[in-house]
Amino acid sequence: MTDLTAPNPDDVLDAARVLQPVAVRTPLLRSPTLDRLTGAEILLKCENLQRSGAFKFRGAYNRLSRLDRSEFPGGVVAYSTGNHGQAVATVGRMLDIRATIVMPSDAPANKIDKARENGGEVVLYERGRQSREDIAAEIAARMPVAVVPPGDDRFVIAGQGSAFVEAAGQASGEVDLVVVPCGGGGLAAGTGLAMEALGSRAELWAAEPEDFDDTRRSLASGRREVNERLSGSVCDALLAPTPAELPFSFNRRKLSSVLTVSDEEVLRAIRFAFEELRLVVEPGGAVALAALLKRPEALRGRRAVVLLSGGNVEPEVFRKALAG
Amino acid sequence: MTDLTAPNPDDVLDAARVLQPVAVRTPLLRSPTLDRLTGAEILLKCENLQRSGAFKFRGAYNRLSRLDRSEFPGGVVAYSTGNHGQAVATVGRMLDIRATIVMPSDAPANKIDKARENGGEVVLYERGRQSREDIAAEIAARMPVAVVPPGDDRFVIAGQGSAFVEAAGQASGEVDLVVVPCGGGGLAAGTGLAMEALGSRAELWAAEPEDFDDTRRSLASGRREVNERLSGSVCDALLAPTPAELPFSFNRRKLSSVLTVSDEEVLRAIRFAFEELRLVVEPGGAVALAALLKRPEALRGRRAVVLLSGGNVEPEVFRKALAG
Repeated sequence: MTDLTAPNPDDVLDAARVLQPVAVRTPLLRSPTLDRLTGAEILLKCENLQRSGAFKFRGAYNRLSRLDRSEFPGGVVAYSTGNHGQAVATVGRMLDIRATIVMPSDAPANKIDKARENGGEVVLYERGRQSREDIAAEIAARMPVAVVPPGDDRFVIAGQGSAFVEAAGQASGEVDLVVVPCGGGGLAAGTGLAMEALGSRAELWAAEPEDFDDTRRSLASGRREVNERLSGSVCDALLAPTPAELPFSFNRRKLSSVLTVSDEEVLRAIRFAFEELRLVVEPGGAVALAALLKRPEALRGRRAVVLLSGGNVEPEVFRKALAG
Repeated sequence: MTDLTAPNPDDVLDAARVLQPVAVRTPLLRSPTLDRLTGAEILLKCENLQRSGAFKFRGAYNRLSRLDRSEFPGGVVAYSTGNHGQAVATVGRMLDIRATIVMPSDAPANKIDKARENGGEVVLYERGRQSREDIAAEIAARMPVAVVPPGDDRFVIAGQGSAFVEAAGQASGEVDLVVVPCGGGGLAAGTGLAMEALGSRAELWAAEPEDFDDTRRSLASGRREVNERLSGSVCDALLAPTPAELPFSFNRRKLSSVLTVSDEEVLRAIRFAFEELRLVVEPGGAVALAALLKRPEALRGRRAVVLLSGGNVEPEVFRKALAG
């Protein structure tokens, strides 16, 4: 089912219409403290309050609601221990589409439980012994299934962009900067498309973990660079090995800056969100906020939408952030 | 300045108008998990996301915005280590009204800092050696000040009620139950008045900590009962010694039920809000949610607005809730 056709700006407006009755219209919050720190007007789009706890619900719903069920009687499959997998499971249950979530057998038990709770059928595999391809073949042997990728899909990207369509409506008035967390790049690409669709002339910045700055390096070199490591950052949601193809083809022309932050800066942002915003934000969802707190002067005089993209954080990690 | 005139339903609508341009229109969130657990439609009014982190901003703003500055050149004074004090400080700064917050010298250092950060002038007193009356006399000796009580004031109560006016607008359609946290009773009274103003026929329930069930006992006996203790619950925001006079005169005829919860049940509700709602809720702000989680079957078939009334929780308490 994966559609490698590039999404266009109208696809995002269409996604926003499809999502309007089912997605949470997440609040766009202000923080006087943040405005004071930055000398800017910061509008926080709280996608941590989205269904399934992350913006990923948008892409998953926009994709699954268009599934040709006769072509894919086995439903959909997602390879993800994280927010994309949870979102696909959640939407599968809503739409009565069988959703298989493929996870390594050493994934945290609570993530596996959560996927099952959300209605997903979890298939475990052993990292060392089996490949994702083997698993896919096994699943497809039972009944035709559609793979839902987290980034390389026209309707997934368009769905992610709908968060900005909403935010622009809530902001009432021009915004001159948008800052989003960046892993594979689907949210950045969707947001850029949304800006084009709305005729926004704002700049688009992305934020990444500093040792997983594949997008920053890829923009510099002009080709998709690969991260040296696949783990080792607290930002579990942003550890894609390389920018996804389709998003990158947009992001390379649209992103004007990529900021990077350390684990410590991310934990500090989580604590800030706890104390000042009373919001639970996960590490990967807090990188844009962390970048802003790292260099508050960089935003002086601007009116910026900043995405808090998810809130599915392990209690242990949150406790660590509060202790810091 | 304290106005012991009883507020009327129109005062609440008027407060809602006054607050509309300055208060956060806090989101009314759903949780599929909560709906499933209860067999009800639960609409969570998130006043933890209000300015200064609690609904108290509403009452403070509605009161201070009506202050006769020529009569009270010394501004206002509030006796509170908690949300009411923080709210009065915040509003004082917004309206350029001198706000004095009186706190015991053994109050937690971070609460004192917070009041100063919010623009309040903090006056410390020694619990054993000085009385609140002495302090009031000392402050008033400098310049006439108006005392802003947390409950016994027409415009404070009316302000608190504006949260429900907003929620009713967001709910689109009838609600048949409203559940609010209850300390001195100002929020319950304001909410009840708002319901009258809007012609809502919903029931109004309150929730209290189980060892601080003064409102429950007062409704039973018909007179204002006093709690045996003044401390010893994790719900620091709800430890009023007795129902405030003016709110109680309403609550005694309007409240149809008072639910009580233990500290453990409150901590469990905080953890639920963390995991399922991605919201930071303080103990006192979580008692209505805790009551609902304690007896989910009690809400079966209903459409209920449940107030999350504040989010100013100490990191240590939150860590404890997550560990539980």
